[in-house]
Amino acid sequence: MINLGGVFPPLPTAFGTHDELLTDKLQENIRSLNQYALRGYLILGSNGELINLSEEEKNRVYVAAREAIPHDKLMLAGTGGQSTSETLKLTAIAASAGADAVLILNPSYYRGLMNRVALVSHYHEIADHSDIPVIIYNMPANSGLDMDAETIVEISSHENIIGLKDSGGNLTKMAQIIDETDDDFQVLAGSAGFLVPAMSIGAVGGILALANISPEHCMAMHTRYLAGDFKGAAHFQRKCVKLNNAVTRGWGVPALKAAMDHLGLYGGPCRKPIQNLDQEKAEVLFKLVRQLNEQTLI
Amino acid sequence: MINLGGVFPPLPTAFGTHDELLTDKLQENIRSLNQYALRGYLILGSNGELINLSEEEKNRVYVAAREAIPHDKLMLAGTGGQSTSETLKLTAIAASAGADAVLILNPSYYRGLMNRVALVSHYHEIADHSDIPVIIYNMPANSGLDMDAETIVEISSHENIIGLKDSGGNLTKMAQIIDETDDDFQVLAGSAGFLVPAMSIGAVGGILALANISPEHCMAMHTRYLAGDFKGAAHFQRKCVKLNNAVTRGWGVPALKAAMDHLGLYGGPCRKPIQNLDQEKAEVLFKLVRQLNEQTLI
Amino acid sequence: MINLGGVFPPLPTAFGTHDELLTDKLQENIRSLNQYALRGYLILGSNGELINLSEEEKNRVYVAAREAIPHDKLMLAGTGGQSTSETLKLTAIAASAGADAVLILNPSYYRGLMNRVALVSHYHEIADHSDIPVIIYNMPANSGLDMDAETIVEISSHENIIGLKDSGGNLTKMAQIIDETDDDFQVLAGSAGFLVPAMSIGAVGGILALANISPEHCMAMHTRYLAGDFKGAAHFQRKCVKLNNAVTRGWGVPALKAAMDHLGLYGGPCRKPIQNLDQEKAEVLFKLVRQLNEQTLI
Amino acid sequence: MINLGGVFPPLPTAFGTHDELLTDKLQENIRSLNQYALRGYLILGSNGELINLSEEEKNRVYVAAREAIPHDKLMLAGTGGQSTSETLKLTAIAASAGADAVLILNPSYYRGLMNRVALVSHYHEIADHSDIPVIIYNMPANSGLDMDAETIVEISSHENIIGLKDSGGNLTKMAQIIDETDDDFQVLAGSAGFLVPAMSIGAVGGILALANISPEHCMAMHTRYLAGDFKGAAHFQRKCVKLNNAVTRGWGVPALKAAMDHLGLYGGPCRKPIQNLDQEKAEVLFKLVRQLNEQTLI
Repeated sequence: MINLGGVFPPLPTAFGTHDELLTDKLQENIRSLNQYALRGYLILGSNGELINLSEEEKNRVYVAAREAIPHDKLMLAGTGGQSTSETLKLTAIAASAGADAVLILNPSYYRGLMNRVALVSHYHEIADHSDIPVIIYNMPANSGLDMDAETIVEISSHENIIGLKDSGGNLTKMAQIIDETDDDFQVLAGSAGFLVPAMSIGAVGGILALANISPEHCMAMHTRYLAGDFKGAAHFQRKCVKLNNAVTRGWGVPALKAAMDHLGLYGGPCRKPIQNLDQEKAEVLFKLVRQLNEQTLI
Repeated sequence: MINLGGVFPPLPTAFGTHDELLTDKLQENIRSLNQYALRGYLILGSNGELINLSEEEKNRVYVAAREAIPHDKLMLAGTGGQSTSETLKLTAIAASAGADAVLILNPSYYRGLMNRVALVSHYHEIADHSDIPVIIYNMPANSGLDMDAETIVEISSHENIIGLKDSGGNLTKMAQIIDETDDDFQVLAGSAGFLVPAMSIGAVGGILALANISPEHCMAMHTRYLAGDFKGAAHFQRKCVKLNNAVTRGWGVPALKAAMDHLGLYGGPCRKPIQNLDQEKAEVLFKLVRQLNEQTLI
Repeated sequence: MINLGGVFPPLPTAFGTHDELLTDKLQENIRSLNQYALRGYLILGSNGELINLSEEEKNRVYVAAREAIPHDKLMLAGTGGQSTSETLKLTAIAASAGADAVLILNPSYYRGLMNRVALVSHYHEIADHSDIPVIIYNMPANSGLDMDAETIVEISSHENIIGLKDSGGNLTKMAQIIDETDDDFQVLAGSAGFLVPAMSIGAVGGILALANISPEHCMAMHTRYLAGDFKGAAHFQRKCVKLNNAVTRGWGVPALKAAMDHLGLYGGPCRKPIQNLDQEKAEVLFKLVRQLNEQTLI
Repeated sequence: MINLGGVFPPLPTAFGTHDELLTDKLQENIRSLNQYALRGYLILGSNGELINLSEEEKNRVYVAAREAIPHDKLMLAGTGGQSTSETLKLTAIAASAGADAVLILNPSYYRGLMNRVALVSHYHEIADHSDIPVIIYNMPANSGLDMDAETIVEISSHENIIGLKDSGGNLTKMAQIIDETDDDFQVLAGSAGFLVPAMSIGAVGGILALANISPEHCMAMHTRYLAGDFKGAAHFQRKCVKLNNAVTRGWGVPALKAAMDHLGLYGGPCRKPIQNLDQEKAEVLFKLVRQLNEQTLI
């Protein structure tokens, strides 16, 4: 059984100025982050621009990432497509590349048709055929579809489905899911904005964009909460909200990449039509980075 | 300075079968709940059908409630109207009746016009003229308007504004508000569905519909969290979600009243056009009540 | 049977700089607009700030309006409250004041509870007791609740319910409603932004904020469409959209009042917490007024 | 200059029971529909399950469709992807296959990042490189992003961008777009639910799912409106709403395919995870088909 307890950065994918994929830069980022006690990495999630890559490019990213990720850290791979067949194919590619588990966002283009039967069938068919465990991914801000607790609980009944990343931030729903799923079903917060609240009801960790740029603050929330230092955990939780907003729902992947460049990692551009962060926002962003870093971690 | 730390039931208002106000039944409910270590009560909040009463009836409810509420428990009074002038008037009435503080929902009918200037001016004018402290009330599910963190922080700067009840359930926003307001600004969870997550980032308590029917489970979450029993708090948090959903966003006030009748308090009908809970839902509800009560409180 | 075919301005209510009601200014506005072939007026709709007046003030407005409205023009009165009892009372007041029909917005504070049974019961009980005909009012932008076609059709079956004002702008739904209601059920567009499209499927007219400030352009759309001049109607429809947006969902009642002041009618302030239009927006607004007025009406 | 005036069915893509692509069945459907005076066809729009096909399959569908579409009818090809590069590539493939124009849905996965600059740049870069004209496609129900009038007007300024399909149904916005774009910019209704209202403000036709199964009723709305028979156009508009709802936002592509099977065309299954229409809904659907067909077309 894979233990998901801990913090995972969802790595952005590195592109050059001509839209070309730079797998070496991705590997450099991973090797730089390997110094921290992160539980692992998510490759090709929403921050990894999964939908902006061709199938061949996705394979190259999975392979390159696995080379750089040591085997004591988990490699989670985003493989969710709109059709079941596309998702099956990509899941097999990620497994071959050495991923430890796949993270699968629900299809949502035909959201009116994604009823419980459709979603449960989709996840169960993939779990039936996947050589590695499956983690459910609920991300309403991007998908436009918020899977309800009952649907997620029903999906979770498959033995090859081991957990959930929920980015919606509805803690009431998360509490219901944790209550109604098996004890070994593992829930991960999908944003550093609510990691401590999620842990307060039983989440085991998080896949956190912020962990790309502030891994120590993210881990501080996690380790302090587990150690019973609830005031400390709450303190870091409150302090990280504004920077986290900036690199997630506020200004998104371009802000995350700008902050990475600012901190000596490789950020680079997003693929078009996503625009780079403008200078005015970048200055606000760098100030938020500085303010969070001034919070001592002792 | 009023200490809001603790659990408050937002009492429903008692009506007879001909829509008539039954203040004696309200008083009986209060006297029955006085046995618990609740911090106080909210009179005429959303569960109290504030908007379904005439001004004269509101006054009668405030007065009757104060008679039954001992002075070691707080009486919070809902007094928010659509216009500033109506809110001022109702706030003065509640203060005269002996309320300890008022809880004021933002106007929202003209939601496109409720920008930051309008909302800050509204709250500050009321706080200027109120003889008792003001608590901000954000309740997007009913008002259709979700005040943002920046607006709430700006409103909070008035010395006669002492806290916030937030029913939106966005914990990221709540963390930002707690971080950016003064240390003595007190935040209350607006639903038992996220009391423990709210406390995990610094909320001091909650105004919880569920506390009308399961006061001990609500207080168990609060006291265990404060005592450092985080597993116990998380356990009760998870166990109360489904019943809480049923009496809040699921089936609302009619379900809360049906559960009160079921438990020997006075629930009675809502005012029209709100319909009573149908029998089929009532049976599901009573089963959820039973299931929560089976959770021992040791 | 009352014939609703034509254009109605929903009159704003006149207030002085100290929030006081100025019924004489309202009468002056009406007398000024009486020169046009408008079908009548709506008193105390959303533009009339119904929710910002006391019951006694509402009565004064109804009475004053009727004095100024000649009997060949209809007086429609907004009387919708949150509870059935409040709505019944206000409807009786408006009827006594001489209104020809009432326009009733659905209750929506407890929107989760406003199912079909609740809404149909509400409207039918009011229609049972009203001495004058009832018009349904659907206004999701303000109420936060969009009544569906099936609900409206079921409400329409009462013989004292003669029509619908729909401000939602969903023409597909409007077509279904016209198809499924009796032939004498009359549908009015709730905004000048879609008057011609509404007429193209059978609406008989509109209650149009824009008709307070551009009555001739509003009537031009109506009369040209009825006369078979579809190109002319389409032309005016397209030309009025931007000004109409400005005085409705864009900047709302403060913009409408600013335009009225600009044009020599009485606009004046809104009641707090609604803020007056700022100077920058006012200049854009007055330019839009000028641009529409440059469209010749020949 | 391509004239888009008229009715286009957006053809579903034919699959077999093992998810395999059946281009011959698609061709049979086209040949069957060629008997009507339709203006042309849309290949691989939302009803064509564009997102459920591989790039190689998309090419096969474009080529097969062009073989079956006579050159006096237009072939529009859906080619919108999430990234600009994917869209460029697919647009070139469609042009090579003989499409007359491409219909491009905006990217929306990163909806928070799809500001005006991003969207205008995306469309203009594609239009710069496309050998055939580009039509903008706004479809908020599927994309979750509703492009505003100002953005669409700015996109429309490119000389290789000739029109818009708008499925949002906001007629006020459509009127503004028609008013502010060049006279030769052609707007198409994206649903039969509001074809006549759209024509009443200047739309030239529509791309209508309903035209796959009721081409004559769709064309009746169009031709009668153009001929000045506004009562007849309104009549058919009202009569087609319920069936149209069923095959669009109600039950979607599975309902459209079930109706096609019912009428002797090839519908077949959708690709997973989309489920087939269940029997109960199918019976309601077939009754709606029958009811519309009973409306004589004289």
